[in-house]
Amino acid sequence: MSEVLLSQLAHVEIISPKPEESVRWFVDVLGLELTTQEGQSAYLRGWGEWLHSSLVVTEGPHPALGHIGWRTYGPGDVDTIAARIDPDLAEGWADASVGHGRAFRFRAPMGHLNEVFWETELYEAPPELATDMRLRPQRYTGRGVAARYIDHVTINAPELKDEIAWYRGNLGMRHTGSITPEPGVPMFSTLTSTAIRSTHDLALVPDAPFARGRLNHVAYRVDQRLDVERAADVLLANETPLEFGPGIHGMDEIQYLYVREPGGVRIELNAGGWINTMPDWQPPEHLPSEGPTSYFRNLLMPDSMMESFPPLDVAREHFTKIGQFAE
Amino acid sequence: MSEVLLSQLAHVEIISPKPEESVRWFVDVLGLELTTQEGQSAYLRGWGEWLHSSLVVTEGPHPALGHIGWRTYGPGDVDTIAARIDPDLAEGWADASVGHGRAFRFRAPMGHLNEVFWETELYEAPPELATDMRLRPQRYTGRGVAARYIDHVTINAPELKDEIAWYRGNLGMRHTGSITPEPGVPMFSTLTSTAIRSTHDLALVPDAPFARGRLNHVAYRVDQRLDVERAADVLLANETPLEFGPGIHGMDEIQYLYVREPGGVRIELNAGGWINTMPDWQPPEHLPSEGPTSYFRNLLMPDSMMESFPPLDVAREHFTKIGQFAE
Amino acid sequence: MSEVLLSQLAHVEIISPKPEESVRWFVDVLGLELTTQEGQSAYLRGWGEWLHSSLVVTEGPHPALGHIGWRTYGPGDVDTIAARIDPDLAEGWADASVGHGRAFRFRAPMGHLNEVFWETELYEAPPELATDMRLRPQRYTGRGVAARYIDHVTINAPELKDEIAWYRGNLGMRHTGSITPEPGVPMFSTLTSTAIRSTHDLALVPDAPFARGRLNHVAYRVDQRLDVERAADVLLANETPLEFGPGIHGMDEIQYLYVREPGGVRIELNAGGWINTMPDWQPPEHLPSEGPTSYFRNLLMPDSMMESFPPLDVAREHFTKIGQFAE
Amino acid sequence: MSEVLLSQLAHVEIISPKPEESVRWFVDVLGLELTTQEGQSAYLRGWGEWLHSSLVVTEGPHPALGHIGWRTYGPGDVDTIAARIDPDLAEGWADASVGHGRAFRFRAPMGHLNEVFWETELYEAPPELATDMRLRPQRYTGRGVAARYIDHVTINAPELKDEIAWYRGNLGMRHTGSITPEPGVPMFSTLTSTAIRSTHDLALVPDAPFARGRLNHVAYRVDQRLDVERAADVLLANETPLEFGPGIHGMDEIQYLYVREPGGVRIELNAGGWINTMPDWQPPEHLPSEGPTSYFRNLLMPDSMMESFPPLDVAREHFTKIGQFAE
Repeated sequence: MSEVLLSQLAHVEIISPKPEESVRWFVDVLGLELTTQEGQSAYLRGWGEWLHSSLVVTEGPHPALGHIGWRTYGPGDVDTIAARIDPDLAEGWADASVGHGRAFRFRAPMGHLNEVFWETELYEAPPELATDMRLRPQRYTGRGVAARYIDHVTINAPELKDEIAWYRGNLGMRHTGSITPEPGVPMFSTLTSTAIRSTHDLALVPDAPFARGRLNHVAYRVDQRLDVERAADVLLANETPLEFGPGIHGMDEIQYLYVREPGGVRIELNAGGWINTMPDWQPPEHLPSEGPTSYFRNLLMPDSMMESFPPLDVAREHFTKIGQFAE
Repeated sequence: MSEVLLSQLAHVEIISPKPEESVRWFVDVLGLELTTQEGQSAYLRGWGEWLHSSLVVTEGPHPALGHIGWRTYGPGDVDTIAARIDPDLAEGWADASVGHGRAFRFRAPMGHLNEVFWETELYEAPPELATDMRLRPQRYTGRGVAARYIDHVTINAPELKDEIAWYRGNLGMRHTGSITPEPGVPMFSTLTSTAIRSTHDLALVPDAPFARGRLNHVAYRVDQRLDVERAADVLLANETPLEFGPGIHGMDEIQYLYVREPGGVRIELNAGGWINTMPDWQPPEHLPSEGPTSYFRNLLMPDSMMESFPPLDVAREHFTKIGQFAE
Repeated sequence: MSEVLLSQLAHVEIISPKPEESVRWFVDVLGLELTTQEGQSAYLRGWGEWLHSSLVVTEGPHPALGHIGWRTYGPGDVDTIAARIDPDLAEGWADASVGHGRAFRFRAPMGHLNEVFWETELYEAPPELATDMRLRPQRYTGRGVAARYIDHVTINAPELKDEIAWYRGNLGMRHTGSITPEPGVPMFSTLTSTAIRSTHDLALVPDAPFARGRLNHVAYRVDQRLDVERAADVLLANETPLEFGPGIHGMDEIQYLYVREPGGVRIELNAGGWINTMPDWQPPEHLPSEGPTSYFRNLLMPDSMMESFPPLDVAREHFTKIGQFAE
Repeated sequence: MSEVLLSQLAHVEIISPKPEESVRWFVDVLGLELTTQEGQSAYLRGWGEWLHSSLVVTEGPHPALGHIGWRTYGPGDVDTIAARIDPDLAEGWADASVGHGRAFRFRAPMGHLNEVFWETELYEAPPELATDMRLRPQRYTGRGVAARYIDHVTINAPELKDEIAWYRGNLGMRHTGSITPEPGVPMFSTLTSTAIRSTHDLALVPDAPFARGRLNHVAYRVDQRLDVERAADVLLANETPLEFGPGIHGMDEIQYLYVREPGGVRIELNAGGWINTMPDWQPPEHLPSEGPTSYFRNLLMPDSMMESFPPLDVAREHFTKIGQFAE
C-alpha cells in the first residue's frame, strides 16, 4: 500500500535548442500561457492551471529533460522524502526557484533529475485574462489546442522493474500498470503520484543500457476526447505533423495524439482514461498486443515513437562527460 | 491540510418502496449490473466498477437514504476513524456485510448513517460478461445509459458549516467549494473523500431545521459530456422524465442530468468537471448566481429539485419515532 | 412535391450601427474570415465555405436584415424564378454584386428582400491561409468559435401560412415543420431551400401585424454538438453573454446557442439535427411544448428571444416611410 | 450540372449464408429494427428511418450484393429513368415489392442490380416502440450501436471512369470526388444521389477485370463522431473484431469504422463529413496519400479492406454461369 507523499506532477523542464520557436509554438499552437521569462528559461502553464508554471523551456544544445518537479501532499512531506533519498542520489536543497519555494533535488537511479517542494506561487492573471469564474485561474482563451493541464511525463529507463520500486518507495507513488512481454518483466509502466482518480502522471519506457535520464514525451490534457481530434486539426493547420494518433490506448483508454515541438521534444495531447480508485490495485501485466497501439487493436505505432531525448549519441557523450553515470 | 483516510465513495444504500421496479430501472435504463440480491436488498454496480457493489436498493416504506459506505485508504484507517468518532454518534462494528468486510458504523451529526471499511470483495464477472480487457472488470454492455461509476452522493443538512468541519475532521475529507449567499454561510458545499483529481464525492445542501439524514440525490458518472446528452435520449425513450438538465454547473463545470428512479430517489448522470490538485485549495465561496443553474447562466432550476428523501412530513415523523434526533 | 430551384442559402446581409465592432467580433470571436471590404459593407465567410462570402455586414442606423441571397440549383433557375415573381414584388436585376454575378431581386410578401443568382465567385485563400486539403478552401484556423458554414436565417412574418406557401411556390422550397398552437395555424415554421439531408435554411417566426421585413437571427454551423458547448466557453471568455442555450430543440434535435453580435443582431451557433430525406414529407405540426424549448422539455426560453430587428418602433416608422407596406 | 432524379439511397439488399446470425447481429449489435420477414428475406431499418426498410438480408450461398434501391425525387422520375436505361441493361418492372411500390429494375454496366421507385411504405411503430416525438418514427432504443440511417453503399467496378459517367447520366447523380493515382484515372470515387448537403451515398472502388457486381461495404450513420468510438466499444464487447478504424478519412472528413457482419459482408459505421453545397462542384482528384487512410495521415489500411463480396473465385464462377457478363 502506498502512503501519500505527493499531490501532483507540478512541472517539467525541457531543454530546447530553439527556445524562441518552442515558446511561440507552446503559446500559439498548444495554447499555453507564458507566465514569465527569466534567464535562459521560459515558464508556461495551461489555461486551467493554478500553479505558477507547469512547463519550463530552457535553452540548451539538444532536446532533453531538464528536471521533473513534484508538489508534495503537505509541507512536512518534503523533509520526509529528503530523509529517504540515498545520499548518492541527492543533489541538495534549492531555497527558492522561479514559481516555487524550498525544494529538495535528487536524481533517480536511472538518471532523471527530480525535485519535490510544497510552497508554491499561484498564477495571477493580468487584467486582460482575469475572470470572475472562481474555478478558473484565468479566462478561457480558446487559443490553438487550448491545452488545459499538464498530464504526465514519460521517461526512458534501461531498467524498469527496480526503477518502479524506487519511485514507489521514495516518493510514495502507486504502480498502476505495465506492459510485459514476459510476466514480471515490464517494458512500459505507469505510475501515479497520488491521485486515486488518475490514470498516471509518470510513465517509464525502455532505453539503451548506457543511456540515462532521457525523456520520451510530456503530455498535456484537454477536456473531452473530441478535443484531441480538434487538436489534430489545429496542429495540422499550423503545419505541425502528427507523429501518432489520434487513437485510444489499450492500457488506459486514454485518447492520445503525439507531435513534436520545434525544439524536438515529443508532446502528447490527451483526454479520457479510466478511473482507478483502489490503493491495493494490482497493476495488470498487459500483453504487448494490448499496449499503446491497441484498444482498437489496429493502429500501428510508427518506429519514430522510439526516439527519445537527447538522441542516443548525445546521451552517451553527455552522461560520460558529466561523469555521474557510467555504462 | 487534510490527511488522507479514505480512498473512495464505495457505495450508497437507498430505500425504495418499489424495489423491483427500481432494480429493473437501474439495470435496464441506467445500465447497472446486478451483482446479487440478499434479503431485502439488491446490490448493483456500474459496468466499470471493480468493487462488489456501489448501489444497494433496500425495500422500505419511503424513498430515503439507507447509508453511505466509504472505503479507507489503507487497512489501519478504519481503526483510526473509529477512534475519532464521538461515541454518541457511533453505531458500532459490523463484522461482515454483503460485498465487504469489517466496517465501523456511525451517524454524522446531521443524522446520516455512514460506514467505513477496508476489506472488500471484488466483482467477479460471470462467463457471459467476462472480458480480456484488463482494466475492465467486465465487458462493456452498452445497455441503457451504461453508467460507469458511482460519482457522488448529495445529502441534506439543516446546518452546513459545522457539518463540513465534522466530515473534514473525522474522515479527512477536503472541502472543495461552497455557494454562499453571504460570506461564510454555505448553502451548498462539496467535499472530496481523498482524490486530488476529483470534483467531489460528497455534497451538502440545506434542509428544514428539524430534518435529519435526508438524501437529495445519488450521482453516477459516464465518460464524456455527450454521454450525458445520450443518456437524456435513453431516459426519455424509456419514459423517465428529465427533472433538470442536461446542463453544465457553474461551480465545477460538471455536465449534469437529474431524473427520478421508480422508487422516487433522484439520480444524477454526470461527466466532465474541473480537476483540483491542491491540498491547500481555498474553497471558493460562489455567489448563488454561479451555482447549480449557472455556468451558462440561463438554465432555471425547477423547484422540484428542492425535494429530498424521505419527504419532510415523513422525516419529521420518522426521526421523532426513532428517538435519535429531536427538533 | 417541390421542384428544385435553389442549391443553398448563399449569404445574409445584416445592418449594423457598429460595423467595425461587429466585424471584429465576427472575425475574432466567431472565427469568420473577412474576404473583402467595399463601400459600406464587409464580406465574411466561415472557414469551410467555398463561396466568396456568406455574411455581409453593412453600416446602418439600426440592426436589421439587409437581404437574403440564395444560389440557384442551375443557371436557368434564375430566369425561371424571375418569371414567377409577382411584378409588384420584383425589385429588378443586379448585373453584378460583390462576390456573385447577375441576380434577380424581389421582396417576399412580408417584406423581406431576397435575391437569387447562379454565377458566383469562389473564395481564394491568400498564401498564409492556403491548404493542400482539397475539400477545404483554406486551412483551419481554429480561431474563436471557428464557425464553419452559414446554416439558416430566421425571419419574422406577421402572417406565416401564406408566406410559407409563397416561398414554396416561388422558390421551390420544402416545408419541413411547424409549431402550431392550433392545427393549421403555424407560429413557427422551417423550410429548406433544396437539400434533402438538411434540417432547414429558412425559418419563420411571428411578428406584430404592422411589421415587415424583420430579422430574428442568423445561424452558423459547427461540426459537432460539443463544439456548441465549446463555443459557449469562447463567447463567455470574450464577454459575449449567452442569451439562450446551449440546449437541444425539440423540433429538429439541433443543438443551439443564441448570442448577440455587437451591432445587436442575434446570432445562433448550431450543430446536429435530424436528416429529412423525403420530398413528400408531411411537415408535422408540433405542439408549442415540443418547440424551441423542448426536447429535454425543461429549458425556459427567455422573453428576450422575442426581440427582432429592427426594433418594433423603428419597424413601424421605417416601413411607413418607405411607403411600401402599410399597416 | 446534374438534374435531380433521386431523393435518397433507400435500401441495399445483401446476401448472407448465415441469415439468422446476420439478422440477430444487425438487430442486437448494430441496433437496427426488424420490420418484417418474408420468404427468404428479412427487412430492417435504422431507428431514425421513416421508410419501411433500408437493409434487406436474403439467404444465399455467399456474401454478396442483392440489389440497390433508390427512391426518386418525384413520382414521374421513375418513368424518366426507365426511358433512359439501355434496354440491354433493363431488367423490367416490379409492380410491388415488400416495402415499396412499382419499381424499375436494371443492371449498371459493371453488373450491379439497381432499382428505382417512388411509392413507398412508411414504417409503423408497434405500440411498444411508439413515440410522441414527431420527427422520430419510433422511440430511441439505444440498443447496441443504435445506427440511425443508412448512409452509403460502396461497390466494386473494374472500370470506374465510364461507370461514374453512367450513374451521372442515367440517375442524375453528382460526382463529388475521386482518388486518382494519375490525373483522370480514378481508383476510388464518390457520388451523391441528390442531396446537396451530403457527402456521398454511392462509392466505387476497383475490381479484377472479370468481376462484376461485387460489393465492398454498406455504411450506416450515427449522429456524432464520438458515437463511432462508442460503436467500437459496443462491437468489441460483442466480439465483433474491428477491421479498420475508428479514424477519419482524408477525402471527406468522415469518421469511419469497418467491421464484418456474421455472413461476411463489411459494414461501416460513420459520422461527420463535410458539406457540399455546389451543384457545379469540381470533384477533386485526391492523391492516394490523401485517401482512405489519411486526414491524420498515419493510419494504415489493412489489406483485408480489399476483400469484396462475393469472393473473387465465386464471382468468376457466378457470373459466368448466369451468362450475363463475360470476361
